[in-house]
Amino acid sequence: MRDASKAMRDASRATRDPLTERRLPVIEMFGPTLQGEGRVIGLKTMFVRLAGCDYACVWCDTKYAWEPGQLARSEPLAPAAIVARLEAAAGGCRRVTLSGGNPALHDLAPLVEQLKARGWRTHMETQGSLAPAWLAEIDSATFSPKPPSSGMRTDWAVLAQALALCRDPDLKVVVFDEDDYAYAVDVHGRFPEVPLTLQVGNRVGEDTAATLLERLNRLADRALGDSRLGDVRVLPQMHVLIWGNRRGV
Amino acid sequence: MRDASKAMRDASRATRDPLTERRLPVIEMFGPTLQGEGRVIGLKTMFVRLAGCDYACVWCDTKYAWEPGQLARSEPLAPAAIVARLEAAAGGCRRVTLSGGNPALHDLAPLVEQLKARGWRTHMETQGSLAPAWLAEIDSATFSPKPPSSGMRTDWAVLAQALALCRDPDLKVVVFDEDDYAYAVDVHGRFPEVPLTLQVGNRVGEDTAATLLERLNRLADRALGDSRLGDVRVLPQMHVLIWGNRRGV
Repeated sequence: MRDASKAMRDASRATRDPLTERRLPVIEMFGPTLQGEGRVIGLKTMFVRLAGCDYACVWCDTKYAWEPGQLARSEPLAPAAIVARLEAAAGGCRRVTLSGGNPALHDLAPLVEQLKARGWRTHMETQGSLAPAWLAEIDSATFSPKPPSSGMRTDWAVLAQALALCRDPDLKVVVFDEDDYAYAVDVHGRFPEVPLTLQVGNRVGEDTAATLLERLNRLADRALGDSRLGDVRVLPQMHVLIWGNRRGV
Repeated sequence: MRDASKAMRDASRATRDPLTERRLPVIEMFGPTLQGEGRVIGLKTMFVRLAGCDYACVWCDTKYAWEPGQLARSEPLAPAAIVARLEAAAGGCRRVTLSGGNPALHDLAPLVEQLKARGWRTHMETQGSLAPAWLAEIDSATFSPKPPSSGMRTDWAVLAQALALCRDPDLKVVVFDEDDYAYAVDVHGRFPEVPLTLQVGNRVGEDTAATLLERLNRLADRALGDSRLGDVRVLPQMHVLIWGNRRGV
């Protein structure tokens, strides 16, 4: 039975068109731009944003990646087509950030494999609510478990599993209020060995560079005086400081 | 002769007071604060700024570390005293940045040894104009060779030697003008394997967060469109954005 099943799978595979199989729902691709967040802040990178999310954070700054109707507006692209588009736009850049939504919803193994074969460095952004085995193939990943103000709840066991799979993980917690700050301290206590960034919360349509820097100032003061956060980063979203709350940067 | 010389050195060492030997000229110690620059941006760290510099960059933002008369105003501290002061102020922080001036002017081997023995992570900031052997003991170091607008000239052979000694080096070039930008491209071409950050120039007493962000915007656009800079970071001095051009942050 197992042999027959395998033969069927092989036959099926042989007749698939490599340009149509495993298409991924692409919301947007852009770059080169600067990575705006976390430990990789400032790095020149291309972005691929995939549709769909298992969360629905109230303050999500990329709701266009997952709100009702958005999946229908995404473009289904095969991995080879994504790589071709990246290389047409990238100039000398060979770094790509896979984001969402939650890109871990999709099977990105074929895309990552093709990117790596062509010399790309792959970075992923996800909340760590899913732990697919192919996380082990990504060069680095930022896991941003969502604090109370998001309205979401964290499955700590799955997050631990995802972090353990990834070869070069870091953590990022967005902080809007006191409860979020306490959550960040909790995250650091649970995973003290994983680099942690506290990121100032950003209200799309309300915040300006000035209000973000003012809030960054307060968050920095708070974290600098807190001995529970011995080893931590505090950062703004740099792309918002430079370009404002615009899409596609 | 060599044995006699060694015996003399040993005798000399045995009679030294460990609290007075190898004192280092400390201009200021502060923290915990946030690292404002380069690949380590945002990290919570203590700072030790040592007096003296073999350069005299026209736009140096820490001239109080090396201008005439400043050495006399520094405090000579033994390594053990520096470590004690750090630990009294650090809270849970165990990361320290050794800066200047050019801290590579001094023999920092005893200080680094004591810091490491007590669980500190050491990071150094230097222009790479000197390559003392103890660079190999530092956990990480940012080398910032100075571009034409500084008025200084780079000894590329010494810089290469310093980079090779350090176990985890990165490069940072401050960009004020077109010549500086061309210099940064040259640096990347010479050391393509070392992570490079382009940092927006900052005129102390003139620049504000707004003018720095405007210049960051232009520098980012320039670097993003330049295929010679395939893998690069572009960053501001974050501490200046948060706290302005103040001393001791």
